[in-house]
Amino acid sequence: MKKIKVSEAFKKFMPERAVFVLSIDKRGISNGMVASWNMKCSEEPPLLAVSLWKQCNTQRLIRESKEFVISVPNKSLEKQVRFFGSCHGDKVDKFKETKIRTLPSRHIRTPMLKDATINFECRLEKTVDAGECYIFIGKILASYMNKKKKILLYTKDNKGKRAFQEF
Amino acid sequence: MKKIKVSEAFKKFMPERAVFVLSIDKRGISNGMVASWNMKCSEEPPLLAVSLWKQCNTQRLIRESKEFVISVPNKSLEKQVRFFGSCHGDKVDKFKETKIRTLPSRHIRTPMLKDATINFECRLEKTVDAGECYIFIGKILASYMNKKKKILLYTKDNKGKRAFQEF
Repeated sequence: MKKIKVSEAFKKFMPERAVFVLSIDKRGISNGMVASWNMKCSEEPPLLAVSLWKQCNTQRLIRESKEFVISVPNKSLEKQVRFFGSCHGDKVDKFKETKIRTLPSRHIRTPMLKDATINFECRLEKTVDAGECYIFIGKILASYMNKKKKILLYTKDNKGKRAFQEF
Repeated sequence: MKKIKVSEAFKKFMPERAVFVLSIDKRGISNGMVASWNMKCSEEPPLLAVSLWKQCNTQRLIRESKEFVISVPNKSLEKQVRFFGSCHGDKVDKFKETKIRTLPSRHIRTPMLKDATINFECRLEKTVDAGECYIFIGKILASYMNKKKKILLYTKDNKGKRAFQEF
């Protein structure tokens, strides 16, 4: 049991479920990112938590709109996962750029992803300051599933190149 | 994309990294449980979050002691994972019962697990009320790794029987 840097331990403490975190701005334009720091945190009431870097655009949209969608991808969305994970939504309309297919949500303005395996519509319940990130805790208003589809896992960082695998 | 109950969506939104969450009581007796709702939430400062049911014994110990260890298991600890996940620490000394091997931590009183793949020594930084659970955010004081060992994933609930798989 060797003492190591936290950054090394974090690299080993894998895999993670890389999910799309989608939100919407005041003008009604959706944007989003990919985040692999997420967890269930209550079943009754149903809550999900996701930790987002304080510098990212999506955290601002969520704090303004008080809503977000967690969209769980499969292999068919790997290209979009890489794109949403690699660029800034204030510079590019990632939805347009990737031609990702959306569906309207029932309770919120943020759309969900048609080809995802699971979509969770969330209302922002609580924002927690956590170091360089904000943890957003969302109350799940509705959930949707493509039962036959699998889950894409973020398995490791290969010198800056992210590896994914379906589970 | 079919609308489904959140409990169904949670079953599909897998796998999870089932980790030991260890703590210590006022008398210096360690106890712990297994929790699969956990995530990294900041790298600088290094923070980990874990969501624990409000009724469990470990949440009380963490709130009292302000410290905990997150110990990431591998296949060799599967039996202990099942035991720590299935019984109450106020009735049984799970460490004694399972003969699980411990090591002293450097910065806190709670021990870590000798045969784990990763151990994180954490100081309680923040407690967040989240529905039926408390989210404990711990500052990582030190991390340790057995580099050759793998990570045990909780893959699914088979009608009450939990399935695990090494990754």
